[in-house]
Amino acid sequence: MNVELVKAINTVWVAICAAMIFQMEGGFALLEAGFIRSKNSVSVIAKVIMDIIFGGIAFYVIGFAIAYGPSSGWFGAGFGIIKPSLEITIPDSLFWFLQFGFAVAAISIVSGAVTERIKTWAYATFVFIFVAFIYPVTAGWVWNSNGWLAKLGFNDFAGSAAVHAVGGWAACAGAIVLGPRIGKYSKDGSSNAIPGHNLPLASIGAFVLWFGWFGFNPGSTLAAVGNWELIGKVVTNTFLASAMGGIATMFYTALRYKRIDISMVINGILAGLVAITAGCNLVTYHFAIIIGLVAGVLVDIAVAVIDDMKIDDPVGAVAVHGVNGLWGTVAVGLFAAGKGLFLCGKVDFLFVQALGGFACAIFSFVISFLVFVVMKKTVGLRVSKNEEIAGVDLVTYGVEAYATFE
Amino acid sequence: MNVELVKAINTVWVAICAAMIFQMEGGFALLEAGFIRSKNSVSVIAKVIMDIIFGGIAFYVIGFAIAYGPSSGWFGAGFGIIKPSLEITIPDSLFWFLQFGFAVAAISIVSGAVTERIKTWAYATFVFIFVAFIYPVTAGWVWNSNGWLAKLGFNDFAGSAAVHAVGGWAACAGAIVLGPRIGKYSKDGSSNAIPGHNLPLASIGAFVLWFGWFGFNPGSTLAAVGNWELIGKVVTNTFLASAMGGIATMFYTALRYKRIDISMVINGILAGLVAITAGCNLVTYHFAIIIGLVAGVLVDIAVAVIDDMKIDDPVGAVAVHGVNGLWGTVAVGLFAAGKGLFLCGKVDFLFVQALGGFACAIFSFVISFLVFVVMKKTVGLRVSKNEEIAGVDLVTYGVEAYATFE
Amino acid sequence: MNVELVKAINTVWVAICAAMIFQMEGGFALLEAGFIRSKNSVSVIAKVIMDIIFGGIAFYVIGFAIAYGPSSGWFGAGFGIIKPSLEITIPDSLFWFLQFGFAVAAISIVSGAVTERIKTWAYATFVFIFVAFIYPVTAGWVWNSNGWLAKLGFNDFAGSAAVHAVGGWAACAGAIVLGPRIGKYSKDGSSNAIPGHNLPLASIGAFVLWFGWFGFNPGSTLAAVGNWELIGKVVTNTFLASAMGGIATMFYTALRYKRIDISMVINGILAGLVAITAGCNLVTYHFAIIIGLVAGVLVDIAVAVIDDMKIDDPVGAVAVHGVNGLWGTVAVGLFAAGKGLFLCGKVDFLFVQALGGFACAIFSFVISFLVFVVMKKTVGLRVSKNEEIAGVDLVTYGVEAYATFE
Repeated sequence: MNVELVKAINTVWVAICAAMIFQMEGGFALLEAGFIRSKNSVSVIAKVIMDIIFGGIAFYVIGFAIAYGPSSGWFGAGFGIIKPSLEITIPDSLFWFLQFGFAVAAISIVSGAVTERIKTWAYATFVFIFVAFIYPVTAGWVWNSNGWLAKLGFNDFAGSAAVHAVGGWAACAGAIVLGPRIGKYSKDGSSNAIPGHNLPLASIGAFVLWFGWFGFNPGSTLAAVGNWELIGKVVTNTFLASAMGGIATMFYTALRYKRIDISMVINGILAGLVAITAGCNLVTYHFAIIIGLVAGVLVDIAVAVIDDMKIDDPVGAVAVHGVNGLWGTVAVGLFAAGKGLFLCGKVDFLFVQALGGFACAIFSFVISFLVFVVMKKTVGLRVSKNEEIAGVDLVTYGVEAYATFE
Repeated sequence: MNVELVKAINTVWVAICAAMIFQMEGGFALLEAGFIRSKNSVSVIAKVIMDIIFGGIAFYVIGFAIAYGPSSGWFGAGFGIIKPSLEITIPDSLFWFLQFGFAVAAISIVSGAVTERIKTWAYATFVFIFVAFIYPVTAGWVWNSNGWLAKLGFNDFAGSAAVHAVGGWAACAGAIVLGPRIGKYSKDGSSNAIPGHNLPLASIGAFVLWFGWFGFNPGSTLAAVGNWELIGKVVTNTFLASAMGGIATMFYTALRYKRIDISMVINGILAGLVAITAGCNLVTYHFAIIIGLVAGVLVDIAVAVIDDMKIDDPVGAVAVHGVNGLWGTVAVGLFAAGKGLFLCGKVDFLFVQALGGFACAIFSFVISFLVFVVMKKTVGLRVSKNEEIAGVDLVTYGVEAYATFE
Repeated sequence: MNVELVKAINTVWVAICAAMIFQMEGGFALLEAGFIRSKNSVSVIAKVIMDIIFGGIAFYVIGFAIAYGPSSGWFGAGFGIIKPSLEITIPDSLFWFLQFGFAVAAISIVSGAVTERIKTWAYATFVFIFVAFIYPVTAGWVWNSNGWLAKLGFNDFAGSAAVHAVGGWAACAGAIVLGPRIGKYSKDGSSNAIPGHNLPLASIGAFVLWFGWFGFNPGSTLAAVGNWELIGKVVTNTFLASAMGGIATMFYTALRYKRIDISMVINGILAGLVAITAGCNLVTYHFAIIIGLVAGVLVDIAVAVIDDMKIDDPVGAVAVHGVNGLWGTVAVGLFAAGKGLFLCGKVDFLFVQALGGFACAIFSFVISFLVFVVMKKTVGLRVSKNEEIAGVDLVTYGVEAYATFE
């Protein structure tokens, strides 16, 4: 095969997928803005913009070299766009941009969980620390060919663990350290629903994310030449799991609450997408359906449990990304063709998957928790009570999302 | 040519186009939500989500095998992702996902016409029946190499008939069986305009659909290798017809009503897109312009006629997709290079095009009509009068699209 | 290399990039609609639709042949889709559609600056004149292999000058001839902020534009085969400049106004994108960062200066596209590898870049100014005072963006 043609094909493939992944940021911004109150909706969009611009510089200067440098993924050998420690047939620079798309997705998961109450500059600082130092360590474990999980045969195709669990459990740490929004929990311990201000806006976000996932998962092939059948499989598995996640949540909420909860259905679809992300390269269609079905139920239960624990996660980021990132990672150990527990009867691979999933989640949770606590004790993490009541948009940004219509 | 490279190129091409087609669902959801009242806007987004998730499973389990199985397109030989009865150089699974994109577009056309009054679970049932049994039959006629229309030389490149007419006339059946919304027609027979609640939202939907069409039509090549000139032609024809559809509607409404009707201009653009879909591979640019121009006028007339017949189609789905799907299919018989009536003076091909277009439309209309009537007589099709007045969002879904802004 | 494969790969690449560029129109529409008052938001969306549909026909019938015909870019040799005067390995028709994407971007820059007060049909006329006659002349100078700037070695990779400066300075001409909106400037000379009515809507537009830029810049390679490393470089430079543009504006507004101005941050990101567009093929990452950083500061200063001059540009189009289009063009002369002033110490190339940038800007400004003045003196350019106060949507289009919610 002509090498020039191979590189051209793979570059076209990855360049488009990377752009699709990048535009998922718009999806995060709108989903989160729609699911919260109007008085903080500009501020959450600002958070996602910070994810991109501060995260971009952090990943350029420091993060990428830590994740893909030669030193086993713990610390990088240099700064900037280094030669990554894995074989690719696309430009290093394009690989950088693709990987940045994953990094910024991880931090954007956090933005939803801490919104409506975190200080702007404190959040910006966390973005930099997370994308420069926390995310790259686990990404290096999983995807750097010298990473200890990669060497164990850990399979996290597009990042149920490395992106979603890492982002989701950092989000959980943030929500715990910040504490719940004023008015979320009454003195008698009951939880008060705080409805999103614009569900059509949130649904735009969901459709944008759904579209982007068809770059996120198949783009993780890193090459089209030699992978054409794999691409078809990944695309179809991605879709089937998302559909079943939505169906499961629809029936679950209809049976449990006598009403379809459409916000939860959106989360069920996203949960299916998150869960299939680790194993979309290894499982058959029927197992993709099962993985999505479980994810769609799991997200409902997780939202309720997290609420019972009085962890206030305004958009359900922990349940969608944290819980289902873990579920998806473990599920590969159960259902992977040839080596999953249910297909070969051996627990070795399941053990590696569970180990890798929890290692990523715990590392991210613990370090993020410490960072948030240190920030809380020093620069302060939470806006004033007055600002929280008046809205971050008006006080910090001096604007309203919707100026008087005229 | 190296087969591995050919397959890689074609897979990249179709994978991206399929993702673009899939994201048109977001376009349908937002267009329809914006064009109706706020009190039902969540419910129409829920309908499009149902199109995807129930339609996806229906097409996976049953529909695809009916459409692309070996049995001449009437009934499939098996379930799931079978080997399709046509030659492709992409994975079967990717072909499945691409074809699912067409199937779900067809059912999403229905969602707009029946909105603001159909029961949720009745709609979900119709989605399953339509995607599992109705759409696949006509798709098999047209695109399965054993289909009777395919054998006659019927040319429906990306589905003016198989997708748009089939969807549009099923939508018409639904609107008729359901009857008009409360307040749409006064006792004296006059029609009352019910303005859409959010035109910027509707316009997002229109832009999303327009973008998606550049996957929908050129992606129907199913392969880029050997088709590079065809892809350019299809893209350009698609654009030119849409532009002329918009221009025609703009002048038509400006002359007729003394004001440009921007909602109708959006429908004119979509009408041009629908109409060029059948023949974008066969007509020259100038005929694409003429097809779009006629479509832009036809959609205005059709909207008025359908309204005069007291068929309440809140978003104009029948006029856009049903009428212009037929127009586009017939237009290929008039303008196709080498064999259209105006180019070779013979009616044979025109006859095949008219036959195919009307066969698809009538089949879809009749079967859908029967299904809707049976559902009406058994499980019930329409929400209660109280629910319709209060809004489906609040009563069925327990939410409001826009919770009190604070 | 097999020519058929090369053409297939390049066609896939450009077809997808062209679609991404086309969908930027949705971005322009929503950004502009969100940044202005609700009473004119439908009318600005209508303007962007006119950009596409009238611009499309103008570019098809006349503009393309002027830009890419053999006659040195001044006047074309014929009408319609001619064989362009540069070497391409994609269909002429696809090249046409790609170039149309650039043309329509240029005119869409104008739509924002003249909004809230220009007459609909006057605007439609300007669209036709601009896309048929003004834009193609400068595009021919720059990109036609016979263009005088092309022959001088002018480097405007994806159009900082040919698209953004040309659009931005035409926008400036329109804003000057029209005069400011009623109420924008008080009698004492002070400027009154007129806040945008829907910042989440504007942010959707920004994300759509950002995504589209990853087609706009790398798609300007016109071919993937032989350019795989260049594509990676262009993508990464495009991102880095946008991130730094956003960061620079964030710090600038935070320091200067004690508050982050999120609308300006969006403009800072766009300014970074505009500025890197000319040189993304020639500069290193570090210079991309510097170009974006300067752009992010320049846009803030430019907005203030333009406002001081009492030129009312509701969305900041002149500052973003006009000023930073020039900056980006000149910056190539400073930073280009091997030939920029700061890298080789010679001013020759810098002189060509400055000459080209200002030639494009001045030509566009002067001709557009004359066209606007002639229109003002003849058919009239501005809506009546009553219409401006009541809103263009209601008076000209007979609709409201947001009908009473029910």
